[in-house]
Amino acid sequence: MADPTRASSAWTYARSGVDVDVRDAALKRLLREVRFRPRPDHGRPLAAPGHFAGLVRVGRETLALTTDTVGTKVLLAEELGRWEGVGEDVVAVNVNDLAAVGARPAGLVDTILAGVPDPIAFAGIGRGIDRGLRAAGCALLGGETAVVPGIVRGTDLGGTALGFFPRGRRPVLGDRIRPGDVVLGIPSSGVHANGFTLIRRLLAERSVPLGRPRDGASASLGDELLVPTRIYSRPADTLAGVPATHGLAHLSGGGVRNLVRLHPRVAFVLDRWPEVPPLFRWIQALGPVDDAEMFRTFNMGIGFALVVDRRRLAETRRRLARAGAPDVSEIGHVERGSGVRVPAFDVEFSGYA
Amino acid sequence: MADPTRASSAWTYARSGVDVDVRDAALKRLLREVRFRPRPDHGRPLAAPGHFAGLVRVGRETLALTTDTVGTKVLLAEELGRWEGVGEDVVAVNVNDLAAVGARPAGLVDTILAGVPDPIAFAGIGRGIDRGLRAAGCALLGGETAVVPGIVRGTDLGGTALGFFPRGRRPVLGDRIRPGDVVLGIPSSGVHANGFTLIRRLLAERSVPLGRPRDGASASLGDELLVPTRIYSRPADTLAGVPATHGLAHLSGGGVRNLVRLHPRVAFVLDRWPEVPPLFRWIQALGPVDDAEMFRTFNMGIGFALVVDRRRLAETRRRLARAGAPDVSEIGHVERGSGVRVPAFDVEFSGYA
Repeated sequence: MADPTRASSAWTYARSGVDVDVRDAALKRLLREVRFRPRPDHGRPLAAPGHFAGLVRVGRETLALTTDTVGTKVLLAEELGRWEGVGEDVVAVNVNDLAAVGARPAGLVDTILAGVPDPIAFAGIGRGIDRGLRAAGCALLGGETAVVPGIVRGTDLGGTALGFFPRGRRPVLGDRIRPGDVVLGIPSSGVHANGFTLIRRLLAERSVPLGRPRDGASASLGDELLVPTRIYSRPADTLAGVPATHGLAHLSGGGVRNLVRLHPRVAFVLDRWPEVPPLFRWIQALGPVDDAEMFRTFNMGIGFALVVDRRRLAETRRRLARAGAPDVSEIGHVERGSGVRVPAFDVEFSGYA
Repeated sequence: MADPTRASSAWTYARSGVDVDVRDAALKRLLREVRFRPRPDHGRPLAAPGHFAGLVRVGRETLALTTDTVGTKVLLAEELGRWEGVGEDVVAVNVNDLAAVGARPAGLVDTILAGVPDPIAFAGIGRGIDRGLRAAGCALLGGETAVVPGIVRGTDLGGTALGFFPRGRRPVLGDRIRPGDVVLGIPSSGVHANGFTLIRRLLAERSVPLGRPRDGASASLGDELLVPTRIYSRPADTLAGVPATHGLAHLSGGGVRNLVRLHPRVAFVLDRWPEVPPLFRWIQALGPVDDAEMFRTFNMGIGFALVVDRRRLAETRRRLARAGAPDVSEIGHVERGSGVRVPAFDVEFSGYA
């Protein structure tokens, strides 16, 4: 589908207002200033470079902490007055990052920023949070509701999740990945909570109504876009303690590029990428958006990846099927080299950032 | 200073745009929907009703998790292009809430929401975070930088802190508070990060310039308002494991009303409240704002309170002096009854929310 002739008119995430390079440059400036390392009696942070969650050793436990927001998907929820899905998302985006280091969720705190808190919206968010917690097996430990007129238009939804490693389990950080390993993918439930600034911009440019289905769909476009993020806690928890599991990745912002975070000195070759769901092809055509931009902005149908020992493939698939992911499929393999590529789309990334 | 005749022209936090009753009503709707409790192999949440941090038991450790934002103080930082102080605040507002349950900080994750991330601002925030981490003895474990044009104007700064209880220490939740206990107060460094929506509104109404000192001050008003929140981690950590320490409270949003969170069936009588710092009196006169509104919106000079056994008072003060709080003073005592009152100002609150 890559077509250089349409490059000049093509849409990108940056053109819609989210320049991830600008973000990463600013973040580097911040991190360069943070040099302090605490005394060991304040907990011992573990190195997990570039990973999905921060890890710290406290007493006899290793803990994982991760924080994420639902982003501009909330603006769509607000426009349609439907809050339950984004409530579920705030759990999902956080517990899926815990799942990617093999941690089991122990608790979540939510952060809601609002100009004027709306009781109806909050009730919907609460129902969604409850659904997400059930799927993840996670408690709500607290939260913050900040009334910040002047900063926030509408509402922002974020959270932080705390995870742990049950007795005998170690964090899964990708270091055991080696050439020959299989890459498995578990489907997404839709666009999850990524790329919404681009989606909303394209819908506005093309004056696409949210209340009607797109061609070929049955649900309205708004409903289709607001489907909550699939929660991968159960399948990840089932495999995290198994030696054949070499790496886990949540394919959220950055899409397949997240695999590169797992290991810098192997190549992830995704040569069995499944058929891209129609919603993504429809968004792509709406732009147009080129293939590389689609794969680095959206999940393109696969929300969670597992890198496993090929010799344990059948057993791994059986375990995943029992843990709520019978739809897992083999999407590629690991080779010598570096980066990630999706040959069928002629897409290749050398790094995550 | 309470003067009912000026009630009609008086300013309140609600009139400035932050109605905490509206917020609390919305929050109740959310919490009513969240009913799920996880299986014990996912960690065991401990009841800490209405407290500063959520508590969960994981393996052999009890952990505390708390989340808070700097709020609209960030808008002032932005106006003045001075970011270091609010960077320090994002650590302070979170570790002080951990301090209020007697937990030692083990790690922080920050959340920055921005329309367009600015490298200069991020570098300043990073320097401030580093300073805060040093004061608290806490590691930065990760963070999230969300580019959310359309939701956020400028920048929002928040975070989540993870704390733990060193071997042998139990959470300090106020249940051991009893009539006869002494209430100690440690001074604040200024307005900390509370009430800024009201402050900014009053400054705008009265066209007060930020670049000049208010009458009687030497630093410019902007500098005075941006002084970062004092960090109480060291004094709280020193006392948290001591049996004579019956309760700890971070007097942030809600001011002295935070004491009521510690124990519903005792009265906190703050009959030795120290002289209110000139900055607060100046803000009050600018409104005018009545005494009760001042005490429920601002810290009024005391940022952290400790409820201790009177028989151990001298020893407690010595410990606090060695831990960086030689300026602690006795501000009141505990009686039979309920609520909190500050007799010199004729101010009384029956509850926190």
